Amino acid sequence: MKKVVVIGGGTGSFVVLRGLKKHPVDLSAIVSMADDGGSTGILRDELGVLPPGDVRQCLVALSDSGRLMRSLMNYRFDNGCLEGHSFGNILLSALEKVTGSFEKAVEEAGKILSIKGKVIPVTTNQVRLHMVLKNNKLLKGEREILLYPYSLVEFKSIYLEPFPTVNPRAIDEMMNADLIVFGPGGLYTSLIPNLLVEGMAKALRESKAKKVFIMNLINKKTQTPGYKSSHYLHEVRRFIGKDIFDAIIINNAHPPVDLLEKYSEEGELIQNDFKDVTVIEADILDTEKPEYSKNDVIAHTRALIRHDANKLADVLMNIIHEI
Amino acid sequence: MKKVVVIGGGTGSFVVLRGLKKHPVDLSAIVSMADDGGSTGILRDELGVLPPGDVRQCLVALSDSGRLMRSLMNYRFDNGCLEGHSFGNILLSALEKVTGSFEKAVEEAGKILSIKGKVIPVTTNQVRLHMVLKNNKLLKGEREILLYPYSLVEFKSIYLEPFPTVNPRAIDEMMNADLIVFGPGGLYTSLIPNLLVEGMAKALRESKAKKVFIMNLINKKTQTPGYKSSHYLHEVRRFIGKDIFDAIIINNAHPPVDLLEKYSEEGELIQNDFKDVTVIEADILDTEKPEYSKNDVIAHTRALIRHDANKLADVLMNIIHEI
Repeated sequence: MKKVVVIGGGTGSFVVLRGLKKHPVDLSAIVSMADDGGSTGILRDELGVLPPGDVRQCLVALSDSGRLMRSLMNYRFDNGCLEGHSFGNILLSALEKVTGSFEKAVEEAGKILSIKGKVIPVTTNQVRLHMVLKNNKLLKGEREILLYPYSLVEFKSIYLEPFPTVNPRAIDEMMNADLIVFGPGGLYTSLIPNLLVEGMAKALRESKAKKVFIMNLINKKTQTPGYKSSHYLHEVRRFIGKDIFDAIIINNAHPPVDLLEKYSEEGELIQNDFKDVTVIEADILDTEKPEYSKNDVIAHTRALIRHDANKLADVLMNIIHEI
Repeated sequence: MKKVVVIGGGTGSFVVLRGLKKHPVDLSAIVSMADDGGSTGILRDELGVLPPGDVRQCLVALSDSGRLMRSLMNYRFDNGCLEGHSFGNILLSALEKVTGSFEKAVEEAGKILSIKGKVIPVTTNQVRLHMVLKNNKLLKGEREILLYPYSLVEFKSIYLEPFPTVNPRAIDEMMNADLIVFGPGGLYTSLIPNLLVEGMAKALRESKAKKVFIMNLINKKTQTPGYKSSHYLHEVRRFIGKDIFDAIIINNAHPPVDLLEKYSEEGELIQNDFKDVTVIEADILDTEKPEYSKNDVIAHTRALIRHDANKLADVLMNIIHEI
């Protein structure tokens, strides 16, 4: 069975993992630990735990439990002092408290959810994402970065504070992988935070695995406005230090006009301006009407135009079969 | 395998179930739904869920999972907006929200915890325990009743509001039982609330099962000050409407003097003044030093002088073997 390592954060990795889970591959997810917004941020601040949100999404994606357990993990309380917290985040935080270790918590949650594969936090240090803008303003934390339209002034540097030690299991997985899938996900808030952990870029450069980069579908106005596909690749290359990707997977289907209009206040489609790179163009667009629980407060920000898990997995399986 | 039904509430039922679980019997716990204090009360008020606390304790008692899962269920958050909530209460509340049914939630939690036996809420109606004192003061809710020294003025009536429909599974279990174990537990707050549900007293009178009453060890000053064993039995009989017990199990071991002194501010040992009833006297006292997590805010109120699960189970198994 081929070994596939998916690097990213929350929703992007969720889609890749959920799709690949149905195929006979050995799956690992390496997950960014920079999240500090919403329920995750409150739990970090109040309980001193590591960020559960992205890990939770990967666990759910890999779960072989029934629909109920998956719904339970993503259930968000809508009232009282628990309002906005997802149950899965509370589970991971309680497990971290009881076991004294976030990695052990992830392992135990994986057992409860009967996951197929592994979920590996890229670091188990308590870190915050920092960004220094060209006007010298310092943005502390993913939440602040997501809310600030920093792209207008560009940034000078981005780093994790304090500088974290890599989880050695992440390195092992990458060095033994047949395929490494990087992305999709927020460029500065989900993808690059993985590369800011010491040893990650080096392992990506040195791993003998085939490497693919899944291009995002959309730019957020406050984050990457006007970025074309080449800008994404350029930024990722800059942090990896080398051109490592064997192929870039990019969507070529057109989202419905009404969805694009609906989304236009928040962002726009990413234009494909690739010339000299190996690109796999395919229809990997989800065409189902998005339907979300009113409790899922972040659903509308991520979900209008999105990848289709099955279509994406088919493209990846074609690559895997050629390895 | 003999069928044993345990009727009560939280800690009392926990001890009986934990002890009996190690023996080859078919166990069911019928659980009072009148609790509204602490974490349970907040979840009831804020989320509109049914009280999870007593059910949680019974689930943990019957769990065949490892120590970690049991610790997780009883883990209480010690900070932030989750402070004071036990994880198991949050799990049951989230499951109730996701499934739309408290009974389904209990069933699913039972699966997660691999329980041996059944946990049956005595009603699935949203009820509050009310008590009217002889001075006509109305106490609303178990919490108010527990805090008010009502015994000083005695009570006129006690009832559940609104008058609940019994869970038919509770009646089935009792009618098919070989042994029904009533108690131990708070007389007015855990035991009698089961008898205030329509049909429960009748089923207790009519069931062909052997019936035993496990006498509490201690009186709480605000609840049952000066009550002797005959007072307990008298009160229980009053609500059942008949003398149904084949035997009363009562402890005859002496707690260490230092524990009694420590406890003297809160209450005292119950004196055994039985004359004309069948009594099984035995050493069923827990002699281990109580050790609790600082997060378990109610531990000190219940745990200084307590029953030993294994000794109690041995006494009950002697009865079961004679059936």
